[in-house]
Amino acid sequence: MALVVQKFGGTSVGDIKKIENVARKAIAEYERGNKVVVVVSAMAGETNRLLALAHSITDLPDERELDVLVSTGEQVSVALLAITLKKLGYKAKSYLGSQVKILTDSAFTKARILEVESRNILKDLDEGYIVVVAGFQGVDKDGNITTLGRGGSDTTGVAIAAGLKADVCDIYTDVDGVYTTDPRIYNKARKLKKISYDEMLELASLGSKVLQIRSVELAKKYKVPVHVRSSFTDEPGTIVCEEDKDMEKVVVSGVSYNKDEARITLVNVPDRPGIAAQVFGEISKGNIVVDMIIQNSSIDGTTDLTFTVPKSDLKKALILIEKIAKDLGVKEVLSDDSIAKVSIVGLGMRSHSGVAAKMFEVLGKAGINILMISTSEIKISCAIDEKYTELAVRVLHDAFELDKEPTVEG
Amino acid sequence: MALVVQKFGGTSVGDIKKIENVARKAIAEYERGNKVVVVVSAMAGETNRLLALAHSITDLPDERELDVLVSTGEQVSVALLAITLKKLGYKAKSYLGSQVKILTDSAFTKARILEVESRNILKDLDEGYIVVVAGFQGVDKDGNITTLGRGGSDTTGVAIAAGLKADVCDIYTDVDGVYTTDPRIYNKARKLKKISYDEMLELASLGSKVLQIRSVELAKKYKVPVHVRSSFTDEPGTIVCEEDKDMEKVVVSGVSYNKDEARITLVNVPDRPGIAAQVFGEISKGNIVVDMIIQNSSIDGTTDLTFTVPKSDLKKALILIEKIAKDLGVKEVLSDDSIAKVSIVGLGMRSHSGVAAKMFEVLGKAGINILMISTSEIKISCAIDEKYTELAVRVLHDAFELDKEPTVEG
Repeated sequence: MALVVQKFGGTSVGDIKKIENVARKAIAEYERGNKVVVVVSAMAGETNRLLALAHSITDLPDERELDVLVSTGEQVSVALLAITLKKLGYKAKSYLGSQVKILTDSAFTKARILEVESRNILKDLDEGYIVVVAGFQGVDKDGNITTLGRGGSDTTGVAIAAGLKADVCDIYTDVDGVYTTDPRIYNKARKLKKISYDEMLELASLGSKVLQIRSVELAKKYKVPVHVRSSFTDEPGTIVCEEDKDMEKVVVSGVSYNKDEARITLVNVPDRPGIAAQVFGEISKGNIVVDMIIQNSSIDGTTDLTFTVPKSDLKKALILIEKIAKDLGVKEVLSDDSIAKVSIVGLGMRSHSGVAAKMFEVLGKAGINILMISTSEIKISCAIDEKYTELAVRVLHDAFELDKEPTVEG
Repeated sequence: MALVVQKFGGTSVGDIKKIENVARKAIAEYERGNKVVVVVSAMAGETNRLLALAHSITDLPDERELDVLVSTGEQVSVALLAITLKKLGYKAKSYLGSQVKILTDSAFTKARILEVESRNILKDLDEGYIVVVAGFQGVDKDGNITTLGRGGSDTTGVAIAAGLKADVCDIYTDVDGVYTTDPRIYNKARKLKKISYDEMLELASLGSKVLQIRSVELAKKYKVPVHVRSSFTDEPGTIVCEEDKDMEKVVVSGVSYNKDEARITLVNVPDRPGIAAQVFGEISKGNIVVDMIIQNSSIDGTTDLTFTVPKSDLKKALILIEKIAKDLGVKEVLSDDSIAKVSIVGLGMRSHSGVAAKMFEVLGKAGINILMISTSEIKISCAIDEKYTELAVRVLHDAFELDKEPTVEG
């Protein structure tokens, strides 16, 4: 007998019929002799409807009360799913975050889970209940309702799975797994059978929307196997798990891209200590996340400093930079919002040399100029002209033969 | 400095603009130097929308889960009101039933309040917060969400007022007070300045929808003065409070009517002990509330047994009766769903004789036949043909001079 946590997103519980579909997936698992906990999001559109209500009052609604408001979305979902399960003849019981309880810090609208109490749920599972848990929400030590931020239901699913020591956390979604690249961009994209936590983390932070980053971090920390799969079929999807020897032999697992960044260049920055700290200190005041950063070596005592920020924050970033540019003696501030970032990810990079060189060569042969480069242990990213994004994804996918099932002899 | 509990119903919080109106009423009270707790219902229509969702799944949704579902209605209201109060520059904090906490029994969908914890709210009031409490909901000892049944927000208001030892519980509603009779039926209806708990209880049980019966019972038990008043004006309404000497001098305070009952007559029931118990035992199995009961004295060993049930339960009641009628030897079962009940209520009846006689005389003079009579210490009810309801209300209102402010010399 296994303990399975199933997580369904908003589109999977979008209406009464879809909720019945979710109930049947839970029942199928239950009838296989397993213990089942189902974590659900708010019905599609509901969270936005509630946020719109709050924002029709004020641009900056109180965050404690926002969490009281939007957490009703998941509350409606768990009640409807439990009602459906009981109608179908099964014992079922809903739990809110505060009832589980899922203890978080008090950072309203973006709280972090501190602890999951598992006693009550385990007791209900022993008594044959299918347990339904509200995603996205928790409660702080003072009893205030908190929410985990957008996509937080993935995190709830993994946290519950960790707390209950579940055998697997099934994340049901509208895609049927993790692909070597976005299938909408390249039809040769191949569904991965398995991927390591670290690779998934890189893919998530590079723009893959399959799983929320924090849920992967949590899964990695507590070694919870996560199964990303489709709500619409019973086909297996992709297992996100600890790396094994086979995985390490694959040099590149996937190609990802991100069109949401813009580039800022400070021309002729005086090359003296503390300048970078001043620049990025100013930008962080605007709560802006800087991604890639490049500083050339100094020629004649000045250098060029280039970095990327989210496109949506470009204006704000430029305003902040202009404020200090003169004081710093910067000659000129340039910006470009027509760039894209293309990345390759793979555990095997750690032991295989020449991967970066091959990437640059492939892009060069395709006539794509590389504007910036950044690397991590298992990832190489290149900023390029946005219009070449799709081309770059395809040539890299071909060059690293990602359409082919890897042969794992090494 | 007074402590004021204000309760607003669903129409008062029906949209963002109306919620701001509620916020301004709370602020006005706060600015007068008082401590303010606001209890709100779900936005108009919201509870029905949620119930419809549940009923689109099954005719008999699980009641524990129904409470999880519908309690979100008030949760949305308290969040939006608190957001509005903060936008207007005031410290505000929302409380759910489980956060107050309002401890109830576990009778889902119709729970009874056992205890109100006041400590957290009193602390917030001391710190200058306007406290917003979700009506209609509570929590049982196991942490399950419960609801108090339709109209339960009145009960929450009074219970909170009792728990906090508030000076008054203002019930804001779409009528501006308690009238001598329904103003839509008789334009001479007069707004009462004061009415006793007992009279209000009789009026509520006789069909007045101004206050939920349980809220009046609770107000009486804890001696909470309740001020029924309009959401749309600042005019004083009607105070429901302990009786005083002036009240006792008024013979009749109001005339009420109820068209929601139907009459059932069992003809030629054998007059032997235990028959009534059998009849009403059977009916109670259907969870049907019997109101008036009349049994004539026995002639030739049989009697006629007549009683009223809610019109909506008539069919069910007749089916139950048919089941036992033969065994009991009942000759015939008659029913009539075109009756109405007209009642007069007044503390003074306890000491004034001849009130009943006057009522019968007035109805008789108007050509209205009395079908059934029932009395309590401070009330006389007559069942009549439904079509005479409005006429009966008017002639009684005139006869007892209810349009005139009472002179209280005795």
